[in-house]
Amino acid sequence: MAPKAFIFDVFGTLVDWRSSIARTLAPVHSQKGIEANPLAVADAWRGEYQPAMARIRDGNRGYVALDVLHRENLETVLGNLGAADQFTPSEITDLARAWEVLDPWPDVVNGLKRLRKIGLIAPCSNGSIALMSHLARHAGFNWDCILGAEIARNYKPNAAVYLASCAALGLAPADVMMVAAHNSDLIAARKAGLQTGFFPRPLEHGDPAKAELSATSDFEMIAEDLEDLARQLGA
Amino acid sequence: MAPKAFIFDVFGTLVDWRSSIARTLAPVHSQKGIEANPLAVADAWRGEYQPAMARIRDGNRGYVALDVLHRENLETVLGNLGAADQFTPSEITDLARAWEVLDPWPDVVNGLKRLRKIGLIAPCSNGSIALMSHLARHAGFNWDCILGAEIARNYKPNAAVYLASCAALGLAPADVMMVAAHNSDLIAARKAGLQTGFFPRPLEHGDPAKAELSATSDFEMIAEDLEDLARQLGA
Repeated sequence: MAPKAFIFDVFGTLVDWRSSIARTLAPVHSQKGIEANPLAVADAWRGEYQPAMARIRDGNRGYVALDVLHRENLETVLGNLGAADQFTPSEITDLARAWEVLDPWPDVVNGLKRLRKIGLIAPCSNGSIALMSHLARHAGFNWDCILGAEIARNYKPNAAVYLASCAALGLAPADVMMVAAHNSDLIAARKAGLQTGFFPRPLEHGDPAKAELSATSDFEMIAEDLEDLARQLGA
Repeated sequence: MAPKAFIFDVFGTLVDWRSSIARTLAPVHSQKGIEANPLAVADAWRGEYQPAMARIRDGNRGYVALDVLHRENLETVLGNLGAADQFTPSEITDLARAWEVLDPWPDVVNGLKRLRKIGLIAPCSNGSIALMSHLARHAGFNWDCILGAEIARNYKPNAAVYLASCAALGLAPADVMMVAAHNSDLIAARKAGLQTGFFPRPLEHGDPAKAELSATSDFEMIAEDLEDLARQLGA
C-alpha cells in the first residue's frame, strides 16, 4: 500500500546540523576568543542531546521543548570550555537558536516537493513546533503541518511520538511512512506500525565511518537519498 | 509592539464555510433525492457545532477531534431530514470531509502572504491538524505550523487553546495577535493576554443582518478585511 503521508526525521536526515552549527559558532568563537574548533563544539553540543531527552523519556523530568534542552546543553558546553562567563543569558538564548538555521542537504527541497504530490508531508522530529517552523523558513521546506515530539509531549524513539503524529494526520500507522537516515528511529517507528524509508547521510558526522551507511532492517523503502526515494515511489 | 506572530480563526473568518458546504451537498442532495435547500442543511450542520464542543469544554466528554464531531453532527442532521438510511457509514464519513474543501474569501490568500512577511502565521481554529492541513491545500494557505484546538486538546473559547498556541510558537501572548471576524473569539483571546485584530464577514451567514458587522471592543486592530489589516500593519 502506498503511504498516504510521509513524516520525517529532521536533524541529520534532512539538514546538515553539524556544518550549520559550526558556521553559526565560528564568528562567536572569534568574537569571544574561544580557541576550540567550532565543529568539535557542534559535536559536543549534539553529544548532550540524547542524555537530556533520556531524562524526559524515562519520566524523571516533565516534558520541556527541545529549545529549552538546547539552551541548557549549550550552557554545559560553554562551561566545559571555560567560556560560560563570557556570555550574557540573552546571548546564550540567542546562540541556542542556531538550531533554527540549519541548511538542508542538497536533495531535500526537491525531494520533499516531489513527495508532497503523493501525500501529506510533516516533520516528526524531536524539535519543537517553533523550532521546526523557523527551520522550515530557513531551509525552504513547505510542510503540511508540524508533528513530532511536541504533539506527543515526549521524545523519540518513544512510540507515543510516532503514534500521536499518525493520529494527528487522521491516519492509521500503516498508511504513514517514517523516513530517516537513522536505523534506530525507523526500527521504533516500525514497531509502532508505521511504514519505514531509509537512506544514508554519510557526512552527518563529518567522517563517513561515523555514519549509518546502510539499513540494518528490511525497511519498506531503502534509497540513496530523498530524491531517489521519491523516484522509487513514482513521484 | 508589533506582533511577532498572527494566529487566525478559520471557519467564517478565512473561509466561506456556508457556500462551500452547500456546494458539496448539492450533488449529494440530487443523487439521494433530498429536497431540503443545501444552504439550510449547511446552517443546520453548523448549528450542531457549538453544542457538540460545549460538552467537551464543560468536561462532560474527553477531547475528540472536530472531524469526529462533524461526522456525528452530520448523522444528526441527516436523521432530522429523514435521510440517514440512504447513506452507508463510509458515505457519511466521506461527506463529513466537506469541511476540508472550503473556499477562502477573496482577500485571504494575498492577506496571509503579506502578513507572513512580518511574522509567523498559523491557524488557531477548532479544526483538527488533519482538517486544517487538507483545507490549507484546497484554499492555498501556506502556514508556518498548525495550532489551535488539537494542540490544547480543548476547544475555543477556552483560554487553554490560545495559550497553548502561543506556547507552541515560543512566544508570550502579548507578542501574538489573534485575528477573527467574531467578537467572542477575540474577547476570549484578549482575556488570555493576546493582541487582537477584527474585521467583519458580512456574508458568513448569507444575510448580513446575521453577521457581526462591527467590533464590540477596542481591539488593537480593526480592519475591513485581511488585506486591509495587513496594509494597516505596513505589510
